[in-house]
Amino acid sequence: MTPNPLAGVRFQPDPDAPQPLYRQLGDALREAIATGSLAVGARLPSERDYAARLGVSRTTVTAAYQELKDQGLLRGYVGRGVVVLAADVEDGVAGAGLPWPQLGARLSRQGLPSRLQRRAAEVTLGDGWLHPELLPAAALQEAAVRAAANPEHFVRAAPPFGLPALRDAIAQRESRPGGRVDADDVLVCGGAQQGINLVARALLGPGDRVLTESPTWHGAVRAFRAAGAEVSGVPMDHEGIDPEALEDALLRQRPKLVYLIPTLHCPTGRVAGLARRRRVLALCQRYRTPILESQVYGELMFDAAATPPSLRRLDERGLVIELGSVAKSLSPALRLGWLIAPRAALTLLGAAKAGLDLGTPVVPQAILADVFERGIVDRHLVRLRRALATRRDTLVAALARHAPELRLTSPAGGLYLWGTLPPGIGGAELEAAAEGEGVAIRGGEAFLPEAGPSRQVRLCFAAAPTESLDAGAERVGRALRRLLAEPRVNVDRGHAAAWV
Amino acid sequence: MTPNPLAGVRFQPDPDAPQPLYRQLGDALREAIATGSLAVGARLPSERDYAARLGVSRTTVTAAYQELKDQGLLRGYVGRGVVVLAADVEDGVAGAGLPWPQLGARLSRQGLPSRLQRRAAEVTLGDGWLHPELLPAAALQEAAVRAAANPEHFVRAAPPFGLPALRDAIAQRESRPGGRVDADDVLVCGGAQQGINLVARALLGPGDRVLTESPTWHGAVRAFRAAGAEVSGVPMDHEGIDPEALEDALLRQRPKLVYLIPTLHCPTGRVAGLARRRRVLALCQRYRTPILESQVYGELMFDAAATPPSLRRLDERGLVIELGSVAKSLSPALRLGWLIAPRAALTLLGAAKAGLDLGTPVVPQAILADVFERGIVDRHLVRLRRALATRRDTLVAALARHAPELRLTSPAGGLYLWGTLPPGIGGAELEAAAEGEGVAIRGGEAFLPEAGPSRQVRLCFAAAPTESLDAGAERVGRALRRLLAEPRVNVDRGHAAAWV
Repeated sequence: MTPNPLAGVRFQPDPDAPQPLYRQLGDALREAIATGSLAVGARLPSERDYAARLGVSRTTVTAAYQELKDQGLLRGYVGRGVVVLAADVEDGVAGAGLPWPQLGARLSRQGLPSRLQRRAAEVTLGDGWLHPELLPAAALQEAAVRAAANPEHFVRAAPPFGLPALRDAIAQRESRPGGRVDADDVLVCGGAQQGINLVARALLGPGDRVLTESPTWHGAVRAFRAAGAEVSGVPMDHEGIDPEALEDALLRQRPKLVYLIPTLHCPTGRVAGLARRRRVLALCQRYRTPILESQVYGELMFDAAATPPSLRRLDERGLVIELGSVAKSLSPALRLGWLIAPRAALTLLGAAKAGLDLGTPVVPQAILADVFERGIVDRHLVRLRRALATRRDTLVAALARHAPELRLTSPAGGLYLWGTLPPGIGGAELEAAAEGEGVAIRGGEAFLPEAGPSRQVRLCFAAAPTESLDAGAERVGRALRRLLAEPRVNVDRGHAAAWV
Repeated sequence: MTPNPLAGVRFQPDPDAPQPLYRQLGDALREAIATGSLAVGARLPSERDYAARLGVSRTTVTAAYQELKDQGLLRGYVGRGVVVLAADVEDGVAGAGLPWPQLGARLSRQGLPSRLQRRAAEVTLGDGWLHPELLPAAALQEAAVRAAANPEHFVRAAPPFGLPALRDAIAQRESRPGGRVDADDVLVCGGAQQGINLVARALLGPGDRVLTESPTWHGAVRAFRAAGAEVSGVPMDHEGIDPEALEDALLRQRPKLVYLIPTLHCPTGRVAGLARRRRVLALCQRYRTPILESQVYGELMFDAAATPPSLRRLDERGLVIELGSVAKSLSPALRLGWLIAPRAALTLLGAAKAGLDLGTPVVPQAILADVFERGIVDRHLVRLRRALATRRDTLVAALARHAPELRLTSPAGGLYLWGTLPPGIGGAELEAAAEGEGVAIRGGEAFLPEAGPSRQVRLCFAAAPTESLDAGAERVGRALRRLLAEPRVNVDRGHAAAWV
């Protein structure tokens, strides 16, 4: 089985030495343990066997073992013999701390999301947040004061499925114009990112596969991978996921879940029309594959009347879990989102939520229920859509002026422009060059579920102050021209080479 | 490789039939698909091969394939030939919805925690919550109004590591009396349960092993298992985890993590003394195994001066991640907890937090920072300890009167009594009998990391109104006497048998 554990013990008995034999043997064993030749957990032979093998008396081995037992280096176990224990860590040994970075779980060892590490840019067209000027702070503050008036909000945890008042308010809003969502269909969660993780925790495990649009929201890819699943991207056209490619992938890969952002897709801003939605739904029905539908941008069509119905509304088979959030439309500070799902799916999701954090904080839920019920959110959304449309137009015009090489389609809503770069320039490359110019943007590579090149960039027109959008576009243009002017170095090949 | 996909196609060409041959072949293929003899994903032979095999012309096969392609039952793929697609789900077919309960991830398919399913008992000695009368609602309400005065709390997300003001406040409290915790050592999370899940997500994966005390908090076991890890319980003595058994388990099982509750252990209420703490720490140092130390009850020693230092304070090797929470001491509604960890470990935990939900809601963090800074929490804790001690004495005395058969040790703090039943009665059995009497308690079985019998019960003296503690004890006594009086039925054996 295992190699002889004693091979590394250098015991040469010397009857003339001043130390008794048992101590010589003890020293040899101790040295073998210290140098690692005798491994922690190794089993030593019985005293009788060892004595016979060494040609010494049994009491010599017994005394040597006893000395090491007293020093905490050996221990006898009934039925398992004598086992080598780990030596105490010596005080003052440098590096005696744990190698924490190596202890990270394989599945989540993907490092910090880049935005945690990056220094703040002077102009941010990078991350998908709303500038505070776009948010109804005063109305939320008033709602918080009203929520504070109820002592129950501080002394009782909300049920794992959420505060009943908020589940009601969400169900009511989601029932317009139909009437199909009940409070019992809703699970409140800690933002859309937690919602995705709850679905992953409830449904996915090692060996499962998830299909997503390619590109897609990288936080979702991270969540699916953290649950042990494999993620495959499916190509898109101008309306979102390509149905032919989707069917091929459903057929070949037998995914456990399909994750889609059909309304104002992140990062491309694309919107699937009604026919496309029905087609995608029919395919997933055929292959009996659940859909997680992100509606995180679902209320941000600038022409709200043109918003197509969610897949969940069109679904008659109980196939779709819909994910909502207020982080991109009302407040990123509340950290609230929700899942709407068929009852049997919601039971799984509720168990995942209870196991994850028992439930969501009460006061933010009370605040959101209040502003939903009072119509504050709906009135705010009218203003927000108008303000975002203006920002979109401003940035599109500024980029046309300052970075005409960037090919853009003006999106029908949301927070992002999705631009295509001239051949030979990668999105991440422009991101790095733009960072040098003090403007944050996101290269398309970050949104690819499988690693690969991208000639795209995402530019957020919502996060910066309006008056800095033009300066941002100018800096992007400067970075782009710098890249276009430079002789290109193909670092992958390890030598300088001009390429376009 | 695969068996002949055509074996199940019943095509008997009949030249005299009214339908042309291609349609006869099409019907046969369609029937084979409908009955499942031709499986979804199966590859059909090329038109030429199939024609040769059937002895028909190639145009017959081409026309038959085309008919089925038009019906969406076949599709040709370049390089892969013709493949069988799934048939559309027929409208109105019963049970066409997804079998959601079977779709649950194996790792989290442990059902809803029992307290989500159980009806409310008349008296609750079951779950570990504080009765609202024990909590400083008014002070928290005032803090919420103060938090509402800052518009920033509504329009900006907090960093994933937490609101700086709260990280500061936690670090300051944890630095007493020493001075070792810095705000950068603290990660704010959504309650202790989320904290455990963050550690699991950051460090554990399939194949890893976690050691816990046995019994232990079942929510932790659930979290470790959801990450794919195996959990082994280590026996306890009156001071917590048994050091001999711990070393044996460290040596034999090479765990990735040891989870411990050394102060007011849940469910037993036991407290490890200083010597025991040093011993446990030295063992984990020897085997270089990280410790997750739950200090959820760390501020609930009724004699606060007798609180031993946390393992984290004693740790000089950066081995310990300490978990704190206010759910059991200030407010379960805020859902706030924190992890204090060596920097390199905190980096892993921060990545896990960002991946899980991007960060914790701001307003609850602002409220908690406020009540920490103003000393409100410390003053509240003095009152809370006194009130809990009185409740403990009340319930101990009431049980001595009403259920003298229950053997109890009076705990030095916390929320729970841990009682031992007479031989022959299981904890879950008394739990069920007590439920029949309208009082909730928890059988010890729920706290065993590995399934097994238990003669223990946990009784919480914090959750019920004070005046109902006596009635609760009376009901427990009634349930116990009923069990003791009944001839016992060994249901496992499937027949009635008296046993003690």
